[in-house]
Amino acid sequence: MREVAIVGVGMTRFGELWESPLRNMFTEAALTAIDDAGVDHIDSMYVGAMSSGLFVHQEHIASLLADYLGVAGIPSTRVESACASGGLAVRQAVIEVGAGVSDIVLAGGVEKMTDGVDAIDALATAADQEYEAFHGITFPGLYAFIANAHMHRYGTTREQLADVAVKNHDHGSLNPKAQFPFKITREAVMNSTMVAWPLRLLDCSPVTDGAAAVIVTSMDVAEKLGRPIVKVLASGHATDGLALHSRTDPTTIPAVGRAAEIAFKQAGLTPEKIELAEVHDCFTIAELVVTEELGFVERGRSGEAVSSGETRLGGRIPVNTSGGLKAKGHPVGASGVAQIIEVVEQLRGSAGDRQVEGARIGLTQNMGGSGASCVVHILEGVS
Amino acid sequence: MREVAIVGVGMTRFGELWESPLRNMFTEAALTAIDDAGVDHIDSMYVGAMSSGLFVHQEHIASLLADYLGVAGIPSTRVESACASGGLAVRQAVIEVGAGVSDIVLAGGVEKMTDGVDAIDALATAADQEYEAFHGITFPGLYAFIANAHMHRYGTTREQLADVAVKNHDHGSLNPKAQFPFKITREAVMNSTMVAWPLRLLDCSPVTDGAAAVIVTSMDVAEKLGRPIVKVLASGHATDGLALHSRTDPTTIPAVGRAAEIAFKQAGLTPEKIELAEVHDCFTIAELVVTEELGFVERGRSGEAVSSGETRLGGRIPVNTSGGLKAKGHPVGASGVAQIIEVVEQLRGSAGDRQVEGARIGLTQNMGGSGASCVVHILEGVS
Repeated sequence: MREVAIVGVGMTRFGELWESPLRNMFTEAALTAIDDAGVDHIDSMYVGAMSSGLFVHQEHIASLLADYLGVAGIPSTRVESACASGGLAVRQAVIEVGAGVSDIVLAGGVEKMTDGVDAIDALATAADQEYEAFHGITFPGLYAFIANAHMHRYGTTREQLADVAVKNHDHGSLNPKAQFPFKITREAVMNSTMVAWPLRLLDCSPVTDGAAAVIVTSMDVAEKLGRPIVKVLASGHATDGLALHSRTDPTTIPAVGRAAEIAFKQAGLTPEKIELAEVHDCFTIAELVVTEELGFVERGRSGEAVSSGETRLGGRIPVNTSGGLKAKGHPVGASGVAQIIEVVEQLRGSAGDRQVEGARIGLTQNMGGSGASCVVHILEGVS
Repeated sequence: MREVAIVGVGMTRFGELWESPLRNMFTEAALTAIDDAGVDHIDSMYVGAMSSGLFVHQEHIASLLADYLGVAGIPSTRVESACASGGLAVRQAVIEVGAGVSDIVLAGGVEKMTDGVDAIDALATAADQEYEAFHGITFPGLYAFIANAHMHRYGTTREQLADVAVKNHDHGSLNPKAQFPFKITREAVMNSTMVAWPLRLLDCSPVTDGAAAVIVTSMDVAEKLGRPIVKVLASGHATDGLALHSRTDPTTIPAVGRAAEIAFKQAGLTPEKIELAEVHDCFTIAELVVTEELGFVERGRSGEAVSSGETRLGGRIPVNTSGGLKAKGHPVGASGVAQIIEVVEQLRGSAGDRQVEGARIGLTQNMGGSGASCVVHILEGVS
């Protein structure tokens, strides 16, 4: 495998984009990325989308989107792994460029969630239909199980969960692309509508429309473009059983640990070397467990770490400087790609008010369902 | 890219498998392939499925199926390109092994179509939802447009269309895995229920449940296994606009020609060197146009070629010796993988009553929608 770089990024605003069909959102993000990279063509493309079939009754979107982007003819492949679809699209592009099959590949993600069917029902298809969803449990309930177990085992508090949302909204208030670019208080979270104990409305990421895209190239191509280069040091991917009932320890998300282990090994790094991370905070408890799985904090200490400010901008390891899924929004297929974009912006030093000063190495962690799939990338700014 | 081989194959019977859920079908095919290859593990897997979301309300199936196969943990990725999803799964495995990311990859396809929603509605999501499906046109109608254009331009006859179905049922009658393992007559086709002029019921491939899987390895690994080796000489992939109205010439399917051109170039071969082919006969007219796009017959001569026996077992270039989608069945995500399996069996000399004597080089052509995506593989038996 030859070395691979990310040289262009683009995304739509995240939110309820009533005026934008799926094809338009994707095209906007993709054209922005192509323009940002300064490339005059792409060799192929990958599209991450969780369920365009259920959300907008349209499959076969890889070909559709290549056509609307004006590149009908080139290989275009959709990948799906529920909410990890975007990270997986980037991973496939990294493999294809690394293999030398292509030199310039667009990896994008998209989801149109607000203009079709019941989003909760569609999202529940990421859980085990026969053993979970059919019986009425949806994702707030599944993550509530994890939260209860974590509180019971480690004494994690309701306030600490709230502090994840407060931090991510603080960060999101600095992000003009965010669905909810405003701050919230711990009290607002604690008093918001109960969804599934202990998770309340403001513990949950929203239903969102949006698209995001990046341009993946060989280092050779990247160097010729004369734009800032962010090198892909590692791409780790792991899976686990879909149904939460088969997890031995519900306070863990083993696929995250596995994908991270693969990625750290590939990069030859340890968690201490990571200067910022975008992680999959679909619910506040998810961010806590994930920061433990990634080795940023000791097991059981994640609640304390968020409340003491270790994971906020200016802290030891800033997590979700973009606002995360919670404040930036969560158009499921696009989220993993948008994470990459935030880290690329940070490593380029172009993250504006959210900038982590001098950041050189960042990590993204994108997962599907209650953690049955996970993709971890480690990126390094080299120019 | 290093050289890549297919060393194991497995599939379920195709048909209305009421007793088999999606996860069981896939596991049966995958275990058969693993056993056939004689490998003791797989490094990763790809799953092709068109719309498990609409058909059985289950997304995130790559992780689900890895778990049910007993390999939860390994990278597992679903790819989708409508009815070309299976071919694409094989292609991604070829790229991953070729890149050296993995040595042993399972590529499978699956679709459970008979036990859920209206299959015709779900299949129509492979067409352009905004400009085609929403207005009521489904695939028989789209292919009827192509058939009418071909008849008008080249004088292709209703009888020649029927002869595609007759030939493929003749072949399918020799295939114990086929959904319809029996012969039909030209008269039966000509008198079957009208669906969309000129296409009648027996011009259409059926709605089918089924799964298929192959094991893709490096040549190094393949040689150590001591089983018959089939080398992947080429993997071509191309796209086109989803909506038929944007096609300049409706008697052509340009993505097929493009994918074939890429594949022939990679393999360093011309169409004359291909000794048998499995092609995407979702409707009788599709097989006719595809055999022209692949260069097996001159443009406009495909109807004459089928009626004169050029494309039947014993003919110049046997097409769809398995029975094709028409008689073997068309579980959409699995079809592209099942095509590969038929060609592998032929190149191993183990195709039984359907054997093309001494066949050494074969081709598969799998496409999505009305031809907006196409994957072409060229395979060579080397031991």
